[in-house]
Amino acid sequence: MSIENFISVKQTEGPRFAAALEEHVKDYNVDIMNLQRAVKLKPGKMIEIELENGGVLKSRSVILATGARWREVNVPGEREYRNAGVAYCPHCDGPLFKGKRVAVIGGGNSGVEAAIDLAGIVEHVTLIEYSDVLRADEVLQRKLRSLPNVKILMSAQTTEIHGDGKRVNALSYKDRVSGDDHRVELEGVFVQIGLVPNTEWLKDTVALSRFGEIEIDAKGQTSLPGVFAAGDATTVPYKQIIIAAGDGAKAALSAFDHLIRSSVEEEVVEPAAVSA
Amino acid sequence: MSIENFISVKQTEGPRFAAALEEHVKDYNVDIMNLQRAVKLKPGKMIEIELENGGVLKSRSVILATGARWREVNVPGEREYRNAGVAYCPHCDGPLFKGKRVAVIGGGNSGVEAAIDLAGIVEHVTLIEYSDVLRADEVLQRKLRSLPNVKILMSAQTTEIHGDGKRVNALSYKDRVSGDDHRVELEGVFVQIGLVPNTEWLKDTVALSRFGEIEIDAKGQTSLPGVFAAGDATTVPYKQIIIAAGDGAKAALSAFDHLIRSSVEEEVVEPAAVSA
Repeated sequence: MSIENFISVKQTEGPRFAAALEEHVKDYNVDIMNLQRAVKLKPGKMIEIELENGGVLKSRSVILATGARWREVNVPGEREYRNAGVAYCPHCDGPLFKGKRVAVIGGGNSGVEAAIDLAGIVEHVTLIEYSDVLRADEVLQRKLRSLPNVKILMSAQTTEIHGDGKRVNALSYKDRVSGDDHRVELEGVFVQIGLVPNTEWLKDTVALSRFGEIEIDAKGQTSLPGVFAAGDATTVPYKQIIIAAGDGAKAALSAFDHLIRSSVEEEVVEPAAVSA
Repeated sequence: MSIENFISVKQTEGPRFAAALEEHVKDYNVDIMNLQRAVKLKPGKMIEIELENGGVLKSRSVILATGARWREVNVPGEREYRNAGVAYCPHCDGPLFKGKRVAVIGGGNSGVEAAIDLAGIVEHVTLIEYSDVLRADEVLQRKLRSLPNVKILMSAQTTEIHGDGKRVNALSYKDRVSGDDHRVELEGVFVQIGLVPNTEWLKDTVALSRFGEIEIDAKGQTSLPGVFAAGDATTVPYKQIIIAAGDGAKAALSAFDHLIRSSVEEEVVEPAAVSA
């Protein structure tokens, strides 16, 4: 580690940040096993992680950071124009649509908050809700309705996201009351119909919230001794890269604390999160 | 914000990271007032922050991030060799002393955990405790005593940190029982006698822990509506830059949420943390 390698960065993007982290971790004595899928966690003094390929990892401490995936609307154009007009994170991608026309799909708290947030940046927001009622808190709905550059469409089913081959240029929806089809010209579509934590494989082991998020305390401790968690797979109230990075550090320090406190009577200390 | 500016960073250091953050924030419509000291917070619908120069800032939302300072041993050589052998963060600076001899000053949980941690990296650790008893948890003390490359000195008062003009090369202490003076040859001294949150000015307003830390929940909310906090000044269990950065993002999102939920009946929305 030479001081010449220390450089400064003004801004970055997710994949580059992740690649830099991987470069950084290679400076240390850390094994990385890529392309593995965990299918089961077995609690115990030695915690076991069963992999899809049949392998079993045993460790005195485990940090769960399996992330979450965006729930998709599953219409033509959504995947094709992902990151080319179709976005899932208003806080991250909102500024890229400054002065443009966008739609937000979803009328829950996330969708309505996104629409309010975006209305301060973009030229116009169309909020599209499938059902005939917004599920967002009343105070957020009042705020939304007070904004002059927001149009709210109820009972509207998004049917297709259109583009010119390069970027999004329109959205089609069906009015579920009249049955009519409509087309809205716009440059961006924010899908806000939920985030699904990648925790299906943890059911019946570690305690999960009703949304399937791993329940953690302020130190990243889960319901199982020696098992810690961080990031979008957990009950952390906001899902952001920098927040996951900070909570990852908390979980790592808690795992270290767990290891030095539980290793007194044992001969070998293996301060690794997951070891074969 | 052009894509060419996105670069990757493998590693950085505190001051460079802070400078990059300041560069980044200048891209946005944010006022920065440097060299101001807050002396009082007055709760209310419009929260008031009184400055030492007599100025008063009013805002509907405030984020407190005043940090903490290391408690110093106050002996000759400590300030002179700061960052030249004298260190305060074992997790950050420990790897710089790989294979070397170091001392840890302080026998509380922080000091004993630091000594255990460092013993796995450095050649030898001398733990120096002023009183005749270690205050660390029994389980940590047992772990410490099991390590072959750690020496524990009790009733030892550090009197001076020596160096060659460039870096630390020894430490002197007085045996408080015999009164004898001793000198230990080493390359590093980790001071672990406590962290003092910069919250004296908040007494009798926002709720503080018995250590003076601002009490926060998982969203960075303090005991006062509209007042949020993040980082080393708070009850966050670990004091690290990346953790403070993540919790700063939580506090900012919570402040934003507070503003959009509380601004419905008002005409002007001013989504700034502190505004004049």
